[in-house]
Amino acid sequence: MTQARRGTLGSARGRSGFSRRGFLRAVGISGGASTMFAAMGALELAPTAEAAAAPPYRAPRASDFRLTGRSAASVVVLGGGVAGLVSAYELGKAGYDCTILEPRGRTGGRNFTARAGTRQSELHGYSQTARFAEGQYMNCGAARLAQWMVTVDYCRELGVPIEVFTNYNADAYIYNEKSGMTPGRPVRYRTAEADTYGYVGELLAKASDQGALDKQLTAADRERLLAFLERWGRIGAKADGFAYRGSTRRGFGVWPGAAGTPGIELSPVPSVSEVFASGVGRYFSFNLNYNQAMVMFQPVGGMDQLPKALTRAIGPRRVRLGCQATSVTELAHGVRVAYQDGTGQERVVDADYCIAAMPPHLLAGLPHNLGSAVQRALTSIAPASAGKIGLEYRSRWWETDHRIYGGITETDLDLSHIWHPSYDFNGERGVMIGYYNTGSRADRYGTMSPKAREERAVALGSRIYGRKYRTELASSFSVSWQYVPHLEGAWHRLPGGSPDAPVLRPLTEPSGRVLFAGDWLSYTDGWQHGAILSARKAVTALHARALKHEHRSTPAERGAVHGSADQDGGE
Amino acid sequence: MTQARRGTLGSARGRSGFSRRGFLRAVGISGGASTMFAAMGALELAPTAEAAAAPPYRAPRASDFRLTGRSAASVVVLGGGVAGLVSAYELGKAGYDCTILEPRGRTGGRNFTARAGTRQSELHGYSQTARFAEGQYMNCGAARLAQWMVTVDYCRELGVPIEVFTNYNADAYIYNEKSGMTPGRPVRYRTAEADTYGYVGELLAKASDQGALDKQLTAADRERLLAFLERWGRIGAKADGFAYRGSTRRGFGVWPGAAGTPGIELSPVPSVSEVFASGVGRYFSFNLNYNQAMVMFQPVGGMDQLPKALTRAIGPRRVRLGCQATSVTELAHGVRVAYQDGTGQERVVDADYCIAAMPPHLLAGLPHNLGSAVQRALTSIAPASAGKIGLEYRSRWWETDHRIYGGITETDLDLSHIWHPSYDFNGERGVMIGYYNTGSRADRYGTMSPKAREERAVALGSRIYGRKYRTELASSFSVSWQYVPHLEGAWHRLPGGSPDAPVLRPLTEPSGRVLFAGDWLSYTDGWQHGAILSARKAVTALHARALKHEHRSTPAERGAVHGSADQDGGE
Repeated sequence: MTQARRGTLGSARGRSGFSRRGFLRAVGISGGASTMFAAMGALELAPTAEAAAAPPYRAPRASDFRLTGRSAASVVVLGGGVAGLVSAYELGKAGYDCTILEPRGRTGGRNFTARAGTRQSELHGYSQTARFAEGQYMNCGAARLAQWMVTVDYCRELGVPIEVFTNYNADAYIYNEKSGMTPGRPVRYRTAEADTYGYVGELLAKASDQGALDKQLTAADRERLLAFLERWGRIGAKADGFAYRGSTRRGFGVWPGAAGTPGIELSPVPSVSEVFASGVGRYFSFNLNYNQAMVMFQPVGGMDQLPKALTRAIGPRRVRLGCQATSVTELAHGVRVAYQDGTGQERVVDADYCIAAMPPHLLAGLPHNLGSAVQRALTSIAPASAGKIGLEYRSRWWETDHRIYGGITETDLDLSHIWHPSYDFNGERGVMIGYYNTGSRADRYGTMSPKAREERAVALGSRIYGRKYRTELASSFSVSWQYVPHLEGAWHRLPGGSPDAPVLRPLTEPSGRVLFAGDWLSYTDGWQHGAILSARKAVTALHARALKHEHRSTPAERGAVHGSADQDGGE
Repeated sequence: MTQARRGTLGSARGRSGFSRRGFLRAVGISGGASTMFAAMGALELAPTAEAAAAPPYRAPRASDFRLTGRSAASVVVLGGGVAGLVSAYELGKAGYDCTILEPRGRTGGRNFTARAGTRQSELHGYSQTARFAEGQYMNCGAARLAQWMVTVDYCRELGVPIEVFTNYNADAYIYNEKSGMTPGRPVRYRTAEADTYGYVGELLAKASDQGALDKQLTAADRERLLAFLERWGRIGAKADGFAYRGSTRRGFGVWPGAAGTPGIELSPVPSVSEVFASGVGRYFSFNLNYNQAMVMFQPVGGMDQLPKALTRAIGPRRVRLGCQATSVTELAHGVRVAYQDGTGQERVVDADYCIAAMPPHLLAGLPHNLGSAVQRALTSIAPASAGKIGLEYRSRWWETDHRIYGGITETDLDLSHIWHPSYDFNGERGVMIGYYNTGSRADRYGTMSPKAREERAVALGSRIYGRKYRTELASSFSVSWQYVPHLEGAWHRLPGGSPDAPVLRPLTEPSGRVLFAGDWLSYTDGWQHGAILSARKAVTALHARALKHEHRSTPAERGAVHGSADQDGGE
């Protein structure tokens, strides 16, 4: 992930040392900019001449070939994840003859939704079948969209309805056991925020009043600052030392009701030392991040509605499931990909171009003739671990008993995050995400059996939620992405943390007939947004070449598929 | 509304001077407490013995009458708003014979959803018919639920699906023209929050580093505070004076995309003086309030799904629409209500009890024999103004062009709030709430014609959103609550700001056969939560009496309806 960078504002250089002009030229290739430029006019940043001049993404069209006298080429796409699907979908708009080779039994890649009957084996041999009730599901991988992401546009274009993903909930819990919280006594976000902002307000008001900021602030600034702090922190008057003493924002033990029931506020209010020692504030940044701030979204009915819609739009006959590439060979005027089909038979597909949209560390393991610079680039990218467990419950006790409708509980346990479902509120059953963790925590859970993962998730979660976390459990399903065949990772560690690292240039600016696409070639690794924009970039480059290059032009010559005894396709 | 109170934490007294014990006894009557007590065990506030002993709300049951030898009584309910509907619904569970008199052509009261064909006349003569396209709607009154509110439980019990109401959106705008913002240049919440928290962080880190807080904080406190500020404010290192210089949280002019597109952050970053002079921070408190913090909810398909479901559950034959009460007379063993039916005919209904769940200022205008203390109480409550306009657009340009999916734009224009719709994201059309204002602003808009309201809403909104705010407009519908017949107000100003003001005791502790219910007898005036809990309180009191009192016990004697020439019913 490439967030959390300290800005270099006012500078004309982006994070990778790109010049503004050079960068904006690149925008035209990678696309996704048109909407943003349209919005910029209404924002603080007026569009510069350079920005306005950068062309938005434009999908290939069949009519593009008219002047060239050529027709759309054939393309073999390696991997039916989101990057591969979008590549074929976009190329299909201009009539390209695309064939997707996908080793799994489904498209979508890390966009993977488990429902009743979903099976998943992991590389160490653990095999699971989801036993969720009808209508229940978990998004095992990709699970949320920010509204600025291009993914939202694909949902619109493909008619996939979206609904809010509850990335923040004031009533969700924070549970920091290492900071002294004890079982059954988590703190709600609303309480933690009220106390933290209250004390920040009190301290800053005091400091300002004592003259500590007279160098930084004018008298007018100080007055406005104080007005802000009084309202935002709910602090007392100057005569009272601006003291924070709690407020209704903390929440109630008994909520305000009818006459006779004014409510009982939660008490006691912890001291300033207690609040900062509790470590609750470390979670407040999350909802401020550019890629996580509410409102976030999810497709209605499961994240896989998007790859399903893409697959339908591409045409299922173009998607060969259970087909694993075994070698990639660039020819003089085309590409040959050997693969093993679902029956274990060796086959070959020949095409004018190839878009390699499979995990880079797995692509690196295939025999290919793309050169050592490509191989060096592929091996410079390391996969990262992440895992989730879905805990299906017979009742939605977190809604009825805890009054938590959606949102994320944060912990300092090795569970990391616990998610409340964002669908079917007030329903009969529901699937909680019992852990969503990454790095060494995910490595640890990954080596455990599915049963052991469930055991640990339930044992730790019970400390926060109590008895029903165990007694209401109906079933579970867990995924450890580093052990999922054909994917073997959740996202990536890029060299220098950037897809524009020089070593990756053979992938981002490929010279031959094999192009590359994936979230790992974007600034939003781990997000479908990056996979999609990377695919658009590859599609744009491929189309530009197809309009210039020779390629076989008759359908009869294109997209030939051969048995292993008949590997004579190509040019 | 009764929010924004400075807490009196650690004290055993609530806001109205109730003792804790007395208060908790009251909780059992007004109900809604059971869930809260269940949750308290998992929270900071362990349930006290008193709290644990307070009985939760228990709906009346037919079996309750077994020991008494009595049967359920007849009840006439004045007003088919939420309080009236819940009264009849709860009493119906025990077999009470309820009759609701509702002067409007629909139930729900201020829970009012406008769709294609919805008509509304206002008292000054303006009449409108909504011309929204199929599937489009606006919630003219009640529009959101907090997850702790009992309203959510009624949605569950009645099978009304709920979805997220986007009460906050990081990408919605703030537009403070009085503070110098100019047309076309609003600021997004995410930008405003990043800058405000950045400078608060910088200032407090500086002050702490200079020793200004050494009296308040230990060295360990200061270290933890700094760690919080660094992360939360995205401020620089000590060597850099903890300077805030912007961050990715502000948002981007061009968002991060594929390789070659690292993104261009919004720039320039305003100075600390500019940020506090802009007044953006005044809106941050909203999402921290106990009744407004995300996640908030709405029924799918319009808020009126709730009164519709209540009406179905009560039985439509018990609900007399177009029937306006004209007098209320308490008799020795019952209540007689005269009313005018939809044809203008004078009629009478006699019942054992009455629950008056109509606006207090209108009830005060009816002839009654409930005594001067009741009349004094009723006239002590003043209605408050509020208004909304729904602007239906032919496209969802705020989503495609501005990338705003839901949420509220805040302004210092007399529009006050602008709402983006929380339903049908990515759809074809949508209804924005072009203004939601209260007090003198609502008074002003209320006197304007519907066309003039639309004109002003569009002229002002265009300053924020640009041309399409006018050119994409399809239709509009506005409601000025103070001018809606039979309601004449949005919510209330209670004497002393409390439903437990002594002057209201004749309403909250009624001695006769007429009981009172409504949000105006709760601590959440203007919310359905208050209306519901107030109704439950009235129902509980009525049921307790019915189990003791004499009342007519045969169906033939109950619920008599008479023409105006036959007013001899009753006892």
